Amino acid sequence: MHAYSDAERAAVYRAIYQRRDMRHFLPDAVAPEILTRLLQAAHAAPSVGLMQPWRFIKITDASLRQKIHTVVEQERCLTAQALAEREDEFMRLKVEGILECHTLLVAALCDKREQFVFGRRTLPEMDVASLACAIQNMWLAARAEGIGLGWVSLFNPDELKKLLNMPDDSVPQAILCIGHVEKFYEKPMLEQENWASRRDLNSLIFENTWGTACR
Amino acid sequence: MHAYSDAERAAVYRAIYQRRDMRHFLPDAVAPEILTRLLQAAHAAPSVGLMQPWRFIKITDASLRQKIHTVVEQERCLTAQALAEREDEFMRLKVEGILECHTLLVAALCDKREQFVFGRRTLPEMDVASLACAIQNMWLAARAEGIGLGWVSLFNPDELKKLLNMPDDSVPQAILCIGHVEKFYEKPMLEQENWASRRDLNSLIFENTWGTACR
Repeated sequence: MHAYSDAERAAVYRAIYQRRDMRHFLPDAVAPEILTRLLQAAHAAPSVGLMQPWRFIKITDASLRQKIHTVVEQERCLTAQALAEREDEFMRLKVEGILECHTLLVAALCDKREQFVFGRRTLPEMDVASLACAIQNMWLAARAEGIGLGWVSLFNPDELKKLLNMPDDSVPQAILCIGHVEKFYEKPMLEQENWASRRDLNSLIFENTWGTACR
Repeated sequence: MHAYSDAERAAVYRAIYQRRDMRHFLPDAVAPEILTRLLQAAHAAPSVGLMQPWRFIKITDASLRQKIHTVVEQERCLTAQALAEREDEFMRLKVEGILECHTLLVAALCDKREQFVFGRRTLPEMDVASLACAIQNMWLAARAEGIGLGWVSLFNPDELKKLLNMPDDSVPQAILCIGHVEKFYEKPMLEQENWASRRDLNSLIFENTWGTACR
Protein backbone atom coordinates (compact mmCIF):
# COMPACT_ATOMS: atom_id res chain seq x y z
CA MET A 1 0.00 0.00 0.00
CA HIS A 2 2.79 2.41 0.96
CA ALA A 3 5.48 0.74 -1.14
CA TYR A 4 7.38 2.82 -3.66
CA SER A 5 7.29 1.95 -7.37
CA ASP A 6 9.61 -0.84 -8.52
CA ALA A 7 11.94 1.73 -10.09
CA GLU A 8 12.11 3.78 -6.89
CA ARG A 9 12.74 0.73 -4.73
CA ALA A 10 15.48 -0.36 -7.11
CA ALA A 11 17.12 3.08 -6.80
CA VAL A 12 17.15 2.89 -3.00
CA TYR A 13 18.69 -0.59 -3.08
CA ARG A 14 21.16 0.53 -5.76
CA ALA A 15 22.49 3.25 -3.44
CA ILE A 16 22.64 0.80 -0.52
CA TYR A 17 24.66 -1.73 -2.52
CA GLN A 18 26.88 0.69 -4.47
CA ARG A 19 27.85 2.94 -1.53
CA ARG A 20 31.55 2.62 -0.74
CA ASP A 21 33.94 3.93 1.91
CA MET A 22 36.17 5.95 -0.45
CA ARG A 23 39.84 6.79 0.02
CA HIS A 24 40.76 7.84 -3.54
CA PHE A 25 39.51 11.21 -4.81
CA LEU A 26 39.73 13.54 -7.77
CA PRO A 27 40.47 17.22 -7.03
CA ASP A 28 37.33 18.50 -8.82
CA ALA A 29 35.08 20.80 -6.82
CA VAL A 30 31.93 19.48 -5.18
CA ALA A 31 29.13 21.91 -6.04
CA PRO A 32 27.96 23.81 -2.94
CA GLU A 33 24.34 22.82 -3.58
CA ILE A 34 25.34 19.14 -3.47
CA LEU A 35 27.09 19.62 -0.12
CA THR A 36 23.97 21.37 1.16
CA ARG A 37 21.80 18.44 0.04
CA LEU A 38 24.13 15.99 1.79
CA LEU A 39 23.97 17.93 5.05
CA GLN A 40 20.18 18.21 4.77
CA ALA A 41 20.03 14.44 4.27
CA ALA A 42 22.12 14.00 7.43
CA HIS A 43 19.77 16.25 9.36
CA ALA A 44 16.78 14.15 8.25
CA ALA A 45 18.19 11.17 10.18
CA PRO A 46 16.48 9.66 13.19
CA SER A 47 17.89 10.52 16.60
CA VAL A 48 17.15 9.13 20.02
CA GLY A 49 14.53 11.34 21.69
CA LEU A 50 14.99 13.72 18.71
CA MET A 51 18.23 14.97 20.36
CA GLN A 52 19.92 15.69 17.00
CA PRO A 53 23.40 15.30 18.51
CA TRP A 54 25.20 15.86 15.20
CA ARG A 55 27.51 18.81 14.55
CA PHE A 56 29.60 19.31 11.42
CA ILE A 57 32.76 21.38 11.11
CA LYS A 58 33.73 22.31 7.58
CA ILE A 59 37.49 22.57 7.19
CA THR A 60 38.35 25.37 4.77
CA ASP A 61 41.73 26.38 6.24
CA ALA A 62 44.51 24.56 4.37
CA SER A 63 46.96 24.55 7.30
CA LEU A 64 44.26 23.13 9.57
CA ARG A 65 43.62 20.36 7.04
CA GLN A 66 47.33 19.58 7.10
CA LYS A 67 47.32 19.39 10.92
CA ILE A 68 44.32 17.06 10.83
CA HIS A 69 46.22 14.86 8.41
CA THR A 70 49.16 14.77 10.83
CA VAL A 71 46.89 13.67 13.68
CA VAL A 72 45.56 10.84 11.51
CA GLU A 73 49.04 9.83 10.39
CA GLN A 74 50.13 9.52 14.04
CA GLU A 75 47.20 7.26 14.85
CA ARG A 76 47.76 5.24 11.69
CA CYS A 77 51.25 4.35 12.93
CA LEU A 78 50.03 3.57 16.45
CA THR A 79 47.27 1.38 15.05
CA ALA A 80 49.77 -0.47 12.88
CA GLN A 81 51.90 -1.22 15.94
CA ALA A 82 48.82 -2.38 17.87
CA LEU A 83 47.98 -4.75 15.00
CA ALA A 84 51.28 -6.58 15.64
CA GLU A 85 51.64 -9.32 13.00
CA ARG A 86 49.43 -7.44 10.55
CA GLU A 87 51.43 -4.19 10.90
CA ASP A 88 53.07 -4.24 7.46
CA GLU A 89 49.91 -5.33 5.72
CA PHE A 90 48.00 -2.50 7.40
CA MET A 91 50.64 0.11 6.53
CA ARG A 92 50.27 -0.77 2.85
CA LEU A 93 46.53 0.04 2.86
CA LYS A 94 45.31 3.46 1.82
CA VAL A 95 43.11 4.40 4.76
CA GLU A 96 42.21 8.03 4.08
CA GLY A 97 42.07 10.72 1.41
CA ILE A 98 42.26 13.79 3.67
CA LEU A 99 44.66 15.82 1.54
CA GLU A 100 43.19 14.85 -1.83
CA CYS A 101 39.45 15.18 -1.30
CA HIS A 102 37.78 18.44 -2.23
CA THR A 103 35.61 18.84 0.86
CA LEU A 104 36.64 17.90 4.38
CA LEU A 105 34.21 17.78 7.29
CA VAL A 106 34.56 16.68 10.89
CA ALA A 107 31.38 15.16 12.33
CA ALA A 108 30.99 15.28 16.09
CA LEU A 109 28.68 14.61 18.99
CA CYS A 110 27.56 17.87 20.60
CA ASP A 111 28.33 18.97 24.13
CA LYS A 112 25.85 18.86 27.05
CA ARG A 113 24.42 15.51 26.02
CA GLU A 114 23.73 14.34 29.58
CA GLN A 115 20.47 16.34 29.56
CA PHE A 116 19.05 13.87 27.00
CA VAL A 117 17.67 10.89 28.92
CA PHE A 118 14.95 9.61 26.54
CA GLY A 119 16.18 6.27 25.14
CA ARG A 120 19.64 6.80 26.66
CA ARG A 121 19.26 6.18 30.41
CA THR A 122 20.61 2.65 30.07
CA LEU A 123 22.16 3.02 26.59
CA PRO A 124 23.99 6.37 26.52
CA GLU A 125 25.75 5.31 23.31
CA MET A 126 22.54 5.91 21.35
CA ASP A 127 23.96 9.38 20.60
CA VAL A 128 26.73 7.67 18.62
CA ALA A 129 24.09 5.60 16.85
CA SER A 130 22.11 8.72 15.90
CA LEU A 131 25.15 10.45 14.44
CA ALA A 132 25.99 7.30 12.49
CA CYS A 133 22.48 7.21 10.99
CA ALA A 134 23.01 10.82 9.86
CA ILE A 135 26.32 9.94 8.22
CA GLN A 136 24.79 6.89 6.54
CA ASN A 137 22.10 9.16 5.07
CA MET A 138 24.86 11.44 3.71
CA TRP A 139 26.73 8.46 2.35
CA LEU A 140 23.76 7.11 0.40
CA ALA A 141 22.78 10.57 -0.85
CA ALA A 142 26.38 11.14 -1.93
CA ARG A 143 26.39 7.88 -3.88
CA ALA A 144 23.21 8.91 -5.71
CA GLU A 145 24.86 12.27 -6.46
CA GLY A 146 27.90 10.44 -7.83
CA ILE A 147 30.08 11.77 -5.01
CA GLY A 148 32.44 9.66 -2.91
CA LEU A 149 32.56 9.79 0.88
CA GLY A 150 35.06 8.22 3.26
CA TRP A 151 34.70 7.94 7.05
CA VAL A 152 38.06 8.12 8.83
CA SER A 153 38.13 7.16 12.52
CA LEU A 154 41.91 6.84 12.85
CA PHE A 155 42.60 9.74 15.20
CA ASN A 156 43.07 10.67 18.82
CA PRO A 157 39.84 12.53 19.62
CA ASP A 158 41.56 14.76 22.19
CA GLU A 159 44.06 15.98 19.60
CA LEU A 160 41.30 16.76 17.14
CA LYS A 161 39.29 18.57 19.83
CA LYS A 162 42.26 20.81 20.55
CA LEU A 163 42.72 21.67 16.87
CA LEU A 164 39.06 22.60 16.46
CA ASN A 165 38.49 24.27 19.86
CA MET A 166 35.82 21.76 20.73
CA PRO A 167 34.16 21.67 24.17
CA ASP A 168 35.44 19.03 26.60
CA ASP A 169 32.19 17.09 26.51
CA SER A 170 31.82 17.01 22.72
CA VAL A 171 33.36 14.09 20.80
CA PRO A 172 34.64 14.05 17.23
CA GLN A 173 33.52 10.78 15.64
CA ALA A 174 34.41 11.05 11.99
CA ILE A 175 36.64 12.87 9.57
CA LEU A 176 34.56 12.84 6.39
CA CYS A 177 36.41 13.03 3.08
CA ILE A 178 34.02 14.07 0.32
CA GLY A 179 34.75 14.47 -3.36
CA HIS A 180 34.43 13.30 -6.90
CA VAL A 181 36.03 9.95 -7.66
CA GLU A 182 37.41 8.30 -10.75
CA LYS A 183 35.42 5.20 -9.94
CA PHE A 184 33.66 3.64 -7.01
CA TYR A 185 35.27 0.44 -5.74
CA GLU A 186 33.45 -2.67 -6.95
CA LYS A 187 33.64 -4.14 -3.47
CA PRO A 188 34.65 -2.62 -0.11
CA MET A 189 38.33 -1.76 -0.43
CA LEU A 190 39.23 -3.89 2.58
CA GLU A 191 37.61 -6.84 0.81
CA GLN A 192 39.41 -6.09 -2.47
CA GLU A 193 42.71 -5.90 -0.57
CA ASN A 194 41.95 -9.14 1.28
CA TRP A 195 42.04 -7.47 4.69
CA ALA A 196 38.75 -9.16 5.59
CA SER A 197 35.88 -10.88 3.83
CA ARG A 198 32.13 -10.50 3.88
CA ARG A 199 30.54 -12.90 6.34
CA ASP A 200 27.68 -15.19 5.46
CA LEU A 201 24.54 -13.31 6.47
CA ASN A 202 22.79 -16.43 7.71
CA SER A 203 25.49 -16.93 10.33
CA LEU A 204 24.60 -13.52 11.82
CA ILE A 205 20.89 -14.17 12.33
CA PHE A 206 19.56 -16.17 15.26
CA GLU A 207 16.11 -17.21 16.41
CA ASN A 208 14.93 -16.47 19.97
CA THR A 209 18.25 -17.36 21.55
CA TRP A 210 21.83 -16.39 20.77
CA GLY A 211 23.64 -18.86 18.52
CA THR A 212 20.53 -20.71 17.35
CA ALA A 213 20.08 -20.58 13.59
CA CYS A 214 16.71 -19.57 12.17
CA ARG A 215 14.47 -22.41 11.12
CA MET B 1 29.77 11.34 -14.10
CA HIS B 2 28.74 8.72 -11.55
CA ALA B 3 25.50 10.43 -10.55
CA TYR B 4 22.27 8.48 -10.74
CA SER B 5 19.40 9.66 -12.96
CA ASP B 6 17.20 12.42 -11.58
CA ALA B 7 14.44 9.91 -10.90
CA GLU B 8 16.81 7.60 -9.02
CA ARG B 9 18.26 10.44 -6.96
CA ALA B 10 14.74 11.59 -6.12
CA ALA B 11 13.85 8.09 -4.93
CA VAL B 12 16.85 7.95 -2.60
CA TYR B 13 15.99 11.36 -1.12
CA ARG B 14 12.34 10.38 -0.88
CA ALA B 15 13.26 7.42 1.35
CA ILE B 16 15.58 9.62 3.43
CA TYR B 17 12.87 12.22 4.05
CA GLN B 18 9.88 9.88 4.42
CA ARG B 19 11.53 7.36 6.76
CA ARG B 20 9.93 7.45 10.23
CA ASP B 21 10.52 5.84 13.60
CA MET B 22 7.22 3.95 13.79
CA ARG B 23 5.33 2.92 16.92
CA HIS B 24 1.91 2.12 15.42
CA PHE B 25 1.52 -1.07 13.39
CA LEU B 26 -1.07 -3.16 11.59
CA PRO B 27 -1.10 -6.92 12.31
CA ASP B 28 -0.66 -7.92 8.62
CA ALA B 29 2.20 -10.28 7.86
CA VAL B 30 5.48 -8.97 6.46
CA ALA B 31 6.38 -11.20 3.52
CA PRO B 32 9.48 -13.32 4.30
CA GLU B 33 11.21 -12.12 1.12
CA ILE B 34 10.83 -8.51 2.29
CA LEU B 35 12.41 -9.32 5.65
CA THR B 36 15.25 -11.05 3.81
CA ARG B 37 15.81 -7.97 1.65
CA LEU B 38 15.89 -5.75 4.76
CA LEU B 39 18.50 -7.93 6.43
CA GLN B 40 20.56 -8.05 3.24
CA ALA B 41 20.42 -4.25 3.12
CA ALA B 42 21.67 -4.15 6.72
CA HIS B 43 24.54 -6.46 5.85
CA ALA B 44 25.55 -4.15 2.97
CA ALA B 45 26.35 -1.39 5.48
CA PRO B 46 29.85 -0.08 6.06
CA SER B 47 31.65 -1.26 9.17
CA VAL B 48 34.86 -0.12 10.77
CA GLY B 49 37.69 -2.35 9.51
CA LEU B 50 34.95 -4.49 7.90
CA MET B 51 34.26 -6.00 11.35
CA GLN B 52 30.53 -6.52 10.60
CA PRO B 53 29.63 -6.40 14.30
CA TRP B 54 25.88 -6.75 13.70
CA ARG B 55 23.84 -9.73 14.89
CA PHE B 56 20.07 -10.08 14.62
CA ILE B 57 17.83 -12.23 16.78
CA LYS B 58 14.40 -12.91 15.36
CA ILE B 59 11.81 -13.28 18.08
CA THR B 60 9.24 -15.90 17.08
CA ASP B 61 8.31 -17.15 20.55
CA ALA B 62 5.21 -15.31 21.77
CA SER B 63 6.05 -15.65 25.48
CA LEU B 64 9.54 -14.30 24.82
CA ARG B 65 8.05 -11.31 23.01
CA GLN B 66 5.85 -10.69 26.06
CA LYS B 67 8.90 -10.82 28.37
CA ILE B 68 10.76 -8.36 26.14
CA HIS B 69 7.77 -6.04 26.36
CA THR B 70 7.90 -6.27 30.15
CA VAL B 71 11.59 -5.33 30.17
CA VAL B 72 10.79 -2.27 28.04
CA GLU B 73 7.83 -1.32 30.21
CA GLN B 74 10.07 -1.36 33.30
CA GLU B 75 12.59 0.94 31.65
CA ARG B 76 9.81 3.19 30.35
CA CYS B 77 8.72 3.83 33.95
CA LEU B 78 12.29 4.37 35.18
CA THR B 79 12.96 6.78 32.32
CA ALA B 80 9.77 8.69 33.14
CA GLN B 81 10.95 9.09 36.75
CA ALA B 82 14.39 10.23 35.57
CA LEU B 83 12.73 12.86 33.37
CA ALA B 84 11.32 14.49 36.53
CA GLU B 85 9.11 17.42 35.46
CA ARG B 86 8.42 15.84 32.06
CA GLU B 87 7.36 12.50 33.60
CA ASP B 88 3.64 12.78 32.83
CA GLU B 89 4.24 14.13 29.34
CA PHE B 90 6.61 11.24 28.61
CA MET B 91 4.20 8.62 29.96
CA ARG B 92 1.54 9.81 27.51
CA LEU B 93 3.78 9.15 24.49
CA LYS B 94 3.55 5.87 22.61
CA VAL B 95 7.19 4.79 22.57
CA GLU B 96 7.04 1.27 21.15
CA GLY B 97 4.92 -1.20 19.19
CA ILE B 98 6.46 -4.44 20.46
CA LEU B 99 3.22 -6.38 20.92
CA GLU B 100 1.48 -5.07 17.79
CA CYS B 101 4.18 -5.30 15.12
CA HIS B 102 4.31 -8.40 12.97
CA THR B 103 8.06 -8.97 13.08
CA LEU B 104 10.27 -8.37 16.09
CA LEU B 105 14.07 -8.40 15.93
CA VAL B 106 16.75 -7.61 18.46
CA ALA B 107 19.89 -6.07 16.94
CA ALA B 108 23.10 -6.48 18.89
CA LEU B 109 26.84 -5.97 18.85
CA CYS B 110 28.65 -9.29 18.66
CA ASP B 111 30.94 -10.72 21.31
CA LYS B 112 34.77 -10.75 21.11
CA ARG B 113 34.96 -7.25 19.62
CA GLU B 114 38.25 -6.35 21.32
CA GLN B 115 40.13 -8.21 18.57
CA PHE B 116 39.05 -5.50 16.09
CA VAL B 117 41.53 -2.62 16.39
CA PHE B 118 41.34 -1.04 12.91
CA GLY B 119 39.64 2.34 13.32
CA ARG B 120 38.72 1.53 16.94
CA ARG B 121 41.95 1.87 18.95
CA THR B 122 40.99 5.35 20.10
CA LEU B 123 37.29 5.21 19.21
CA PRO B 124 36.00 1.81 20.33
CA GLU B 125 32.42 3.07 19.90
CA MET B 126 32.80 2.75 16.12
CA ASP B 127 31.20 -0.69 16.50
CA VAL B 128 28.02 1.06 17.66
CA ALA B 129 28.30 3.38 14.65
CA SER B 130 28.61 0.42 12.26
CA LEU B 131 25.54 -1.31 13.64
CA ALA B 132 23.61 1.97 13.40
CA CYS B 133 24.55 2.31 9.72
CA ALA B 134 23.20 -1.20 9.16
CA ILE B 135 19.92 -0.34 10.88
CA GLN B 136 19.65 2.91 8.89
CA ASN B 137 20.00 0.86 5.68
CA MET B 138 17.18 -1.41 6.87
CA TRP B 139 15.08 1.60 7.78
CA LEU B 140 15.39 3.22 4.35
CA ALA B 141 14.85 -0.07 2.55
CA ALA B 142 11.78 -0.71 4.69
CA ARG B 143 10.35 2.70 3.79
CA ALA B 144 10.79 1.95 0.09
CA GLU B 145 9.06 -1.41 0.67
CA GLY B 146 6.19 0.41 2.39
CA ILE B 147 7.04 -1.23 5.72
CA GLY B 148 7.38 0.61 9.04
CA LEU B 149 10.31 0.14 11.42
CA GLY B 150 10.75 1.42 14.96
CA TRP B 151 13.97 1.41 16.98
CA VAL B 152 13.34 0.94 20.71
CA SER B 153 16.26 1.59 23.07
CA LEU B 154 14.25 1.74 26.29
CA PHE B 155 15.56 -1.38 28.02
CA ASN B 156 18.12 -2.62 30.49
CA PRO B 157 20.64 -4.41 28.27
CA ASP B 158 21.54 -6.91 31.01
CA GLU B 159 17.91 -8.01 31.32
CA LEU B 160 17.62 -8.47 27.57
CA LYS B 161 20.89 -10.42 27.46
CA LYS B 162 19.57 -12.82 30.06
CA LEU B 163 16.34 -13.39 28.14
CA LEU B 164 18.20 -14.14 24.90
CA ASN B 165 21.16 -16.07 26.37
CA MET B 166 23.60 -13.53 24.97
CA PRO B 167 27.34 -13.67 25.74
CA ASP B 168 28.58 -11.26 28.44
CA ASP B 169 30.57 -9.18 25.94
CA SER B 170 27.78 -8.78 23.39
CA VAL B 171 25.46 -5.78 23.70
CA PRO B 172 21.85 -5.50 22.57
CA GLN B 173 21.38 -2.08 21.00
CA ALA B 174 17.94 -2.08 19.46
CA ILE B 175 14.59 -3.78 19.62
CA LEU B 176 13.34 -3.41 16.07
CA CYS B 177 9.58 -3.40 15.53
CA ILE B 178 8.81 -4.12 11.89
CA GLY B 179 5.42 -4.24 10.21
CA HIS B 180 2.84 -2.78 7.92
CA VAL B 181 1.40 0.55 9.00
CA GLU B 182 -1.82 2.39 8.38
CA LYS B 183 0.14 5.51 7.53
CA PHE B 184 3.63 6.87 8.04
CA TYR B 185 3.78 9.92 10.35
CA GLU B 186 4.04 13.19 8.42
CA LYS B 187 6.76 14.35 10.82
CA PRO B 188 8.75 12.52 13.51
CA MET B 189 6.21 11.54 16.15
CA LEU B 190 8.14 13.38 18.87
CA GLU B 191 7.84 16.53 16.76
CA GLN B 192 4.12 15.97 16.15
CA GLU B 193 3.62 15.49 19.89
CA ASN B 194 5.68 18.61 20.68
CA TRP B 195 8.26 16.66 22.66
CA ALA B 196 11.05 18.42 20.75
CA SER B 197 11.45 20.38 17.54
CA ARG B 198 13.76 20.14 14.55
CA ARG B 199 16.78 22.39 14.98
CA ASP B 200 17.91 24.87 12.34
CA LEU B 201 20.54 23.01 10.31
CA ASN B 202 22.73 26.10 9.93
CA SER B 203 23.19 26.28 13.70
CA LEU B 204 24.76 22.79 13.61
CA ILE B 205 27.45 23.55 11.02
CA PHE B 206 30.67 25.35 11.90
CA GLU B 207 33.72 26.43 9.93
CA ASN B 208 37.23 25.46 11.08
CA THR B 209 36.51 26.07 14.74
CA TRP B 210 33.68 25.03 17.04
CA GLY B 211 30.89 27.62 17.32
CA THR B 212 31.93 29.68 14.30
CA ALA B 213 29.20 29.86 11.67
CA CYS B 214 30.08 29.11 8.06
CA ARG B 215 30.71 32.14 5.87
